[in-house]
Amino acid sequence: MSFRRVAIIGLGLMGGSLALALRRASLAAQIVGCGRRVRLDQALALGAIDGGDESAAEAVRDCDLIVLCTPVETSIRLMGEIASSVAPEALITDVGSTKLAFAEAARQLFGAAAAERVLPAHPLAGSERSGLENASAELYRGCIWALTPLAAELTGAQRKLQAMIEALGARTLAISPQEHDRVLALTSHLPQMLSTALALVLERALGEGNPALQLHGSGLNSMLRLATSDPVMWEQIATSNREQIAAALEAMEVELRQLRHKLGKAEFRAEFEAARRLARSLRD
Amino acid sequence: MSFRRVAIIGLGLMGGSLALALRRASLAAQIVGCGRRVRLDQALALGAIDGGDESAAEAVRDCDLIVLCTPVETSIRLMGEIASSVAPEALITDVGSTKLAFAEAARQLFGAAAAERVLPAHPLAGSERSGLENASAELYRGCIWALTPLAAELTGAQRKLQAMIEALGARTLAISPQEHDRVLALTSHLPQMLSTALALVLERALGEGNPALQLHGSGLNSMLRLATSDPVMWEQIATSNREQIAAALEAMEVELRQLRHKLGKAEFRAEFEAARRLARSLRD
Repeated sequence: MSFRRVAIIGLGLMGGSLALALRRASLAAQIVGCGRRVRLDQALALGAIDGGDESAAEAVRDCDLIVLCTPVETSIRLMGEIASSVAPEALITDVGSTKLAFAEAARQLFGAAAAERVLPAHPLAGSERSGLENASAELYRGCIWALTPLAAELTGAQRKLQAMIEALGARTLAISPQEHDRVLALTSHLPQMLSTALALVLERALGEGNPALQLHGSGLNSMLRLATSDPVMWEQIATSNREQIAAALEAMEVELRQLRHKLGKAEFRAEFEAARRLARSLRD
Repeated sequence: MSFRRVAIIGLGLMGGSLALALRRASLAAQIVGCGRRVRLDQALALGAIDGGDESAAEAVRDCDLIVLCTPVETSIRLMGEIASSVAPEALITDVGSTKLAFAEAARQLFGAAAAERVLPAHPLAGSERSGLENASAELYRGCIWALTPLAAELTGAQRKLQAMIEALGARTLAISPQEHDRVLALTSHLPQMLSTALALVLERALGEGNPALQLHGSGLNSMLRLATSDPVMWEQIATSNREQIAAALEAMEVELRQLRHKLGKAEFRAEFEAARRLARSLRD
């Protein structure tokens, strides 16, 4: 039932947590890591991996499951690097934040076999923290793990991956790569851009270190939490989902302009009430 | 040192918490509440007040400190209602989220005596929760409490109020009403508008109850927390600080447009890094 030999490419927050979780639940007989030497040593010391290699093409040899746990553009590049050394019957998956670019890269690399050999996926876990030092075997418990298959039916190995994910305490949800990217642009990428843009507005209007910046409540902290996220990861998300994010940003610009024109007018309260209903429905 | 008889006008989260905190720290010999009958009964049952009246003009009689704890427009109206029954030597303060409109109303009501009789103030406490049922004697501990005096020097009674606030565990910060409102438009009102507008964008693009809305991480929850805030309070803030909020919203619209044009370009990462620095400096 469990995979025999799993390669985890990238030992940051996502990959490190996956290795720890698989290890603890005994869901992989062997775990091979791939990352820089210092990371491999740390992961070995944590007991997260059994061995590893700095070269992805070497790490994936003889594995039956390969999980790419790097930012999305890096995962696309690494999928190309491992394509010739990965066993034809092995399954490749990833944890990238956008799915269409990765799915298209898989089709280009593997042609008609892509739907069988690659199951793009995205666990909605992680946080503004990153790195192996924040990894936890509990990271994926209770999260939603989107599966964006390239064909209507999952293969046997893909169903096994789904069962493995659910054994980690996550819920899987199947969705097309396109729809995934449209929804995430709204529910994840837009919130990130807002947090980042808010920090930039504060910096330009008040300046870092201005004592007046003390004048804020806990609301500002919530709204700026995402702005501390990893710039490299977000650069890659922004590049790989540029059009959908641009559309979400434009919708936000329109919404802010409308709200601005309603300040002090009767429609203002109705907008606030509609927003409160939606926010509460998501929280429940 | 402590006030003899304190009137707390409005027994919601802010007023209820203040009454509980003053009681616990023995900072007022007597506390008189003002609110609807059902609220007065609840506050009496909690031991937060010694007595009360539904009429603000009655509640303030013979008090040496009056704290208006209602939304800002309501506090302005109530200050007018109590003006003739409040003792001339008594000090009036408030906890409203904007200060210039309240300060101007005080000047209109009390003329040259306003600077002595009224000390507009704003504790940066509270949350998206409201109501006496969420009140806590701990609400103000550790918060910043802005004082926006109408004159350069504090009077004796005003210094006594400052000492009372600090005895509750809050830090006071003096700032002009104008500068307070400009800063808060950026650090508090803008974050609120962003959270509300984000909820509206999601509702229009995906629709409440859409299962795809499950596809989000904890970041969305942080960004939508403020959107559950009280619409009535925010209607009043938006009205009383309309121009500064409009300016902050415009700055945000510009920032989002610029960020949109930088998606997938080299400058994108530098913007993210600048935002991260500012966000981290506020968190530390």
